[in-house]
Amino acid sequence: MNQPSFDPGLTQKYDSPLRRTFNADGSFNVVRRGTHWRDIHPYLHLVSVSWSRFFGFVLTAYVLVNVIFASIYFALGPESLAGGMAPEQGVARFLKDVFFSSQTLTTVGFGAIYPNTTAANAVAAIEALVGLLGFAVVTGLLFGRVSRPSARIGFSERALIAPYQGGTSLQFRVVNRRANSLMEMQATVTLMRVKPEDGGKLRSFDVLNLERSSVIFFPLTWTVVHPIDNSSPLNGKTPQDLAAAQAEILIVLKAWDETFSQTVYQRFSYRYDEIVWGGKFTPAFHVNGSGDLELEVDRVGAHEQVPGLITQTAAQSS
Amino acid sequence: MNQPSFDPGLTQKYDSPLRRTFNADGSFNVVRRGTHWRDIHPYLHLVSVSWSRFFGFVLTAYVLVNVIFASIYFALGPESLAGGMAPEQGVARFLKDVFFSSQTLTTVGFGAIYPNTTAANAVAAIEALVGLLGFAVVTGLLFGRVSRPSARIGFSERALIAPYQGGTSLQFRVVNRRANSLMEMQATVTLMRVKPEDGGKLRSFDVLNLERSSVIFFPLTWTVVHPIDNSSPLNGKTPQDLAAAQAEILIVLKAWDETFSQTVYQRFSYRYDEIVWGGKFTPAFHVNGSGDLELEVDRVGAHEQVPGLITQTAAQSS
Amino acid sequence: MNQPSFDPGLTQKYDSPLRRTFNADGSFNVVRRGTHWRDIHPYLHLVSVSWSRFFGFVLTAYVLVNVIFASIYFALGPESLAGGMAPEQGVARFLKDVFFSSQTLTTVGFGAIYPNTTAANAVAAIEALVGLLGFAVVTGLLFGRVSRPSARIGFSERALIAPYQGGTSLQFRVVNRRANSLMEMQATVTLMRVKPEDGGKLRSFDVLNLERSSVIFFPLTWTVVHPIDNSSPLNGKTPQDLAAAQAEILIVLKAWDETFSQTVYQRFSYRYDEIVWGGKFTPAFHVNGSGDLELEVDRVGAHEQVPGLITQTAAQSS
Amino acid sequence: MNQPSFDPGLTQKYDSPLRRTFNADGSFNVVRRGTHWRDIHPYLHLVSVSWSRFFGFVLTAYVLVNVIFASIYFALGPESLAGGMAPEQGVARFLKDVFFSSQTLTTVGFGAIYPNTTAANAVAAIEALVGLLGFAVVTGLLFGRVSRPSARIGFSERALIAPYQGGTSLQFRVVNRRANSLMEMQATVTLMRVKPEDGGKLRSFDVLNLERSSVIFFPLTWTVVHPIDNSSPLNGKTPQDLAAAQAEILIVLKAWDETFSQTVYQRFSYRYDEIVWGGKFTPAFHVNGSGDLELEVDRVGAHEQVPGLITQTAAQSS
Repeated sequence: MNQPSFDPGLTQKYDSPLRRTFNADGSFNVVRRGTHWRDIHPYLHLVSVSWSRFFGFVLTAYVLVNVIFASIYFALGPESLAGGMAPEQGVARFLKDVFFSSQTLTTVGFGAIYPNTTAANAVAAIEALVGLLGFAVVTGLLFGRVSRPSARIGFSERALIAPYQGGTSLQFRVVNRRANSLMEMQATVTLMRVKPEDGGKLRSFDVLNLERSSVIFFPLTWTVVHPIDNSSPLNGKTPQDLAAAQAEILIVLKAWDETFSQTVYQRFSYRYDEIVWGGKFTPAFHVNGSGDLELEVDRVGAHEQVPGLITQTAAQSS
Repeated sequence: MNQPSFDPGLTQKYDSPLRRTFNADGSFNVVRRGTHWRDIHPYLHLVSVSWSRFFGFVLTAYVLVNVIFASIYFALGPESLAGGMAPEQGVARFLKDVFFSSQTLTTVGFGAIYPNTTAANAVAAIEALVGLLGFAVVTGLLFGRVSRPSARIGFSERALIAPYQGGTSLQFRVVNRRANSLMEMQATVTLMRVKPEDGGKLRSFDVLNLERSSVIFFPLTWTVVHPIDNSSPLNGKTPQDLAAAQAEILIVLKAWDETFSQTVYQRFSYRYDEIVWGGKFTPAFHVNGSGDLELEVDRVGAHEQVPGLITQTAAQSS
Repeated sequence: MNQPSFDPGLTQKYDSPLRRTFNADGSFNVVRRGTHWRDIHPYLHLVSVSWSRFFGFVLTAYVLVNVIFASIYFALGPESLAGGMAPEQGVARFLKDVFFSSQTLTTVGFGAIYPNTTAANAVAAIEALVGLLGFAVVTGLLFGRVSRPSARIGFSERALIAPYQGGTSLQFRVVNRRANSLMEMQATVTLMRVKPEDGGKLRSFDVLNLERSSVIFFPLTWTVVHPIDNSSPLNGKTPQDLAAAQAEILIVLKAWDETFSQTVYQRFSYRYDEIVWGGKFTPAFHVNGSGDLELEVDRVGAHEQVPGLITQTAAQSS
Repeated sequence: MNQPSFDPGLTQKYDSPLRRTFNADGSFNVVRRGTHWRDIHPYLHLVSVSWSRFFGFVLTAYVLVNVIFASIYFALGPESLAGGMAPEQGVARFLKDVFFSSQTLTTVGFGAIYPNTTAANAVAAIEALVGLLGFAVVTGLLFGRVSRPSARIGFSERALIAPYQGGTSLQFRVVNRRANSLMEMQATVTLMRVKPEDGGKLRSFDVLNLERSSVIFFPLTWTVVHPIDNSSPLNGKTPQDLAAAQAEILIVLKAWDETFSQTVYQRFSYRYDEIVWGGKFTPAFHVNGSGDLELEVDRVGAHEQVPGLITQTAAQSS
C-alpha cells in the first residue's frame, strides 16, 4: 500500500487485441479524444512541435503582423510615409508600406522610408513596441526549445534471461550515449501482462525488484538486474507463457543531468519477443594501452549465448 | 508526529459560518490584510497579473519613458534634433521629440530625425541603453509569464462513495487534460471538518490514507481510492453527518512535467454536497479497432449508480 | 548517525565572546579570508550585487566599449565616418566617433553618421555583433536578477515558552507575507549553545523535535511547536540558563514556491533575549461577515501573557 | 539491496594497469568510442565548449550568414541596393552587399545603404527576421553558459587517518570557496579498490558509512568523518595494503545553491598516496577581536601530525 506504482486503470477490462504500450520514442501509445482547445498551453505546444512547424508559425505571424500594420499605413494615405523609390500608388504603395512595416517591426529602421505624419509616427512607435514584445516571446520560445532537457540513454537491443546465483535473472544494459554527466540514476522496471478475465482481458502491472535500483554516477554501462526469486512474477515462466501474456517490460530511468541542471527521464520497453533466453552481456569497455578506460558506446547490447539451454526461469536454489 | 500535514491554525476557533476552503481555481479562499508594499516582489507580481494588466503596465512605462526623454530633448532646444518635417515649434516640436525618443528607445533609429548636438547625442546614447535594458527586463517577464509551469488535471465532477472489498471507499478520478507527460504523480487527500467546540467552531484536518498514493506515469486516468477502514475518519458516517460537519475533501496533486521540466501542483476540493453515495466509475478509455488505447478525456467523471443504496460508509468486514 | 545536522566545526573551541550566528537578513555572521579571485563566479556575483552596483557596472562597460571602438574609428582617419555635423577635427571628431559607436553598439543606427570606408564598415559590423552579444549577456543577468527566487516569511518577533499538554513548549509563528502559494513547507529548528570546555568555549548544536515539521500548504499562519519533553535539551532550563549559554534558536524554513516554480529557503534566529517566558499566540485571522477567512499578516507575532509565571521549562507530566 | 551505489561494470575484469578514476576537474577518466553525431545535443554542446570555441562558432556563423545574404543581393543585380559610396562593381559591390547584410542582420540599419527594389526589400525583411531569431538563440546560449550552476568546494589537499573514539577514522575537510549559501549538503564517499581475480583484475566499490552524511547549512568548514569500525572495508589496513589495492576514495558532494536556486554537485577523489597516516585537522576559523567568526578559506587543509605513529587502521576498542 502507498507504493509508487503504475495503474492506468487496473480494474478496467479490454476486449480487443492490444498493441504495445510504449511507442519507439518512449511516448505512450494512447489516442486522446474529447480534449478542448482550452486544454492547450501555447508555450507547451510551441516548445513541443517540430522545428518546421515552429518556423512556419513564426513566419506566418511575421507576415501577418506586417500586413496588418502595412494596411494601417496604407489607410493613413500616401503622405504617411516619405522616402522610397517614387510616388507609389496601389500595389506599389502597399508593398512600400509592407517593407517599411518590416523595417519597423524588426527595428532595423533603415530610414530610406520613414514616417512623415503624426499618425504614421504614432503607429510606427506602436509597431516597434509590438515587434520588441513579439520577438521577446519568440526569444523565450527558442530558448525553451533549445534548452529543453532530454536524456539519450542507449539500451541493449535485447533483454536477457541470464544465469544468476544458481538461478536466473532478467537483465538489460544501458549506457549514456552523450558525454555529459548523469548523476543518481534510478531505474523502475514494471512487468505488464494481459490476463483473461470474465471473457474480456485485463492488464496487470507488477513492479520488479532490482538487485540495485540506482547508481550514484554513470560513466560506463549499467547492467540492471532483476533477480528471479520466489516472489518474482517471472518465476517459473517459459517463453510461451510470456508470449501468451503479451508480456512487456516497461522501464523508466530518471537521473540528474549536470549540464542541463535538470532531472531527466527516459522510458523504454522490451516486449516478450525482444527477450533472449540464456544470454550474458559481454564487456562494452576495456583498459587501453595508456591505462585509460575505453567505453564502446555502441556495444551496449553486446552479449553471448550461455552454454546450456534456458527454457524456463527459475529462482535461485537455496 | 512529524508527518506532513495541513495546519492553518489547528487550535483556532471560529464563530461565523464559513465558505469553502479552496476557490474554483485552486487558490485559497483567504482575504489578506496588513501586508506592506515592501512585501510585493515586482517579478512575482508582474508574472502573476492578468495579460491586460501586464500590457497596460508595459504600455504605460513605454509612454512615460518616451515623454521623459522627449522633455529632455525639448529642453535642450530646437537645434538638438535635425531632420523631421519642418522647423517645428511648441507642440509640433514636442511631438517630434516624442517620435525621435520612441525611435531611439526601441533602437529602430530611422534617422529621418537625428541628434544634431553633443548634448542630444549623449542623451540619445543613454536612451538607447535604457531602451535595451528596459526591453531586456520585459523579455524576461514575458518569458517568465509564458513559460510558467502549470498542470491541467481534469477531476471527476463528483467524488464517489463506492463499494470496495466488502466495505466502502471514497474515490475520485483524474486525467491529464494535456497530451504532455506527467511523471511520478502523487496525491495528498485531506478531510476538513468543522466541529463545534466551546460555543465556537473548530476546523479539523485529517490526512486520508490512500490505496495507492502515487503513480509512476499517468497516460490514462487514475482513480484515487481512500479505503474506508476502521481507522478512517469517514468510517460510519452518513451524508447528514458530512453536511453537519461542512466536510470538504482537499486534494493536492504533485507531478513532474516532462515538457516544462518542472514540478507542478494542482489543488482541488469536493464539498459534502459534491459526493455521490453509491457510485462506480465507468471506463473512460477503450481499445479501438486498430488495437490502440483510446482515451476520452471528457469522460473522466463518468460513473453509474451501484445497485443497492449506500447511506452510510462502512469499513470492510474482516 | 547519518542524520542531517548542523556542524560548522563541532569540535572547535573559541576563546572570545561571540556575536549572534545569523545576521538580520538571514546570512551567516562569518568573515571570510583567503579567498582567491578565481573563486568568484561572475554570474553569481553580478546577480547578487546591489542594483546600484549592477547599473554602475553596466554603464561603465557601455562607456568603455564605446570609447574603445571610437578610438578605432578615430585611428582609421577622418574619412572613415561620413555625415555628421561638419568636417570635425580633434575632440569634435572623437565625440562624433563615440556617438557613432554608441549608435552601432545599441543597433539604433540612425544613419546620420555612417561608415564610409571598407575598414570602418568592417569595424562597425564587428561592433554591432559585440553589442548584440553584450546586451544578450546583460539581458540574461537582468533576468537572473529579477527572477531570482526568494521567500518573504514573516516571523513572530518573539519565540514563546508556552504551556503545552501539562508541560511546556517552545513556539514561534510564521506567515507568508506574500499572496503567492508556498507548498510543502518544512521547518528545521536547531538550538545553539555555548559551553565552557578546557578553558575555552565550545558551541553545540541540537536539532529540536517538532510536533509537526512540515505542512502541505500554508495559506494562513503556522505555529511551529517544539514540545519540551525529557529528551529535549531545553528541559528544566531557566531564562538564566539560556542567557548563560548564549542560546540561539536557529530556524531554516524550506518550501516550494508555486509562482517561481522553485524551492525557496528562509533563515531566522531567536536569541535567548528574544524569548517570552509564559506566552500564548492569539489568532491572527478571523472569519469576516461574508464568511471568508481574513488573515492579518502583521499580527503574526500577536500573543498574550498566560496566567501564572513560567520561570522554568518542564516536560509534560506523565 | 536497492541502495544507491556505484557500479560501472562490477562484474568486469581488467588486464592492464589503470590510471585514476576521476580527472583533476572531477570528470571521469573514460575514453568514449562508437558515439554517433546524432548523440550530440547542440545546446548541451554549445553550453559546454570553451569560450574561445563558442565565440569562434558565433563569429563563423555570423560571417557565413552575411556572405550568404550578400551573395543573394549580389545576384539580384547592382540596382538592388541604393546609397553607398559610388556605383560599385565586382568585389567592391560584393563588399557593399556584405556590409548592408551585416547592418540588416544585426538590425543596425544605418540606411546609408538601403534596399531599392521589391526583391531586395523582401530579402532584407527575411534577413532581419533571421537575424532576430539567430541572435535569440545566441542570447539563450549565452544565458545558459553564464548561468550554468557550479559549486566551488575546496577540499583539503590530503585525507587523514585520524584517531577517533579510541580507534581510527578516515577524514577530509571541505569548505565553500564562494561566499554564497549552500544548503543541505550531502556527502557520498566510496572506496574503490582493485582486486586480482582469475588472472585479471577486478575493481570493487564500497560505500563508506559516515558519522554524519549531511549538514543543513555550510557557513564554515565541514570535516567529513568515516569511523573505521569492524564493518569498514578499511579496518586493519596498512598503507601498503591500500597501495597494493590502488585504493581511491571517491567523493560526491551535493548541495542546494541558494543563488543559483539549483542543485549543484562536485566530485573529488583521494588516491592512496594522498592519505596522511596519523593527522588531525587544525581549525580553519577563529573568533576575531570584534567577536565575529573569521574563516580562512585557504586553510581548509591545515592539519598537524598526531603524536604516536599510526601504521594500521583499527576499529574502536569496545
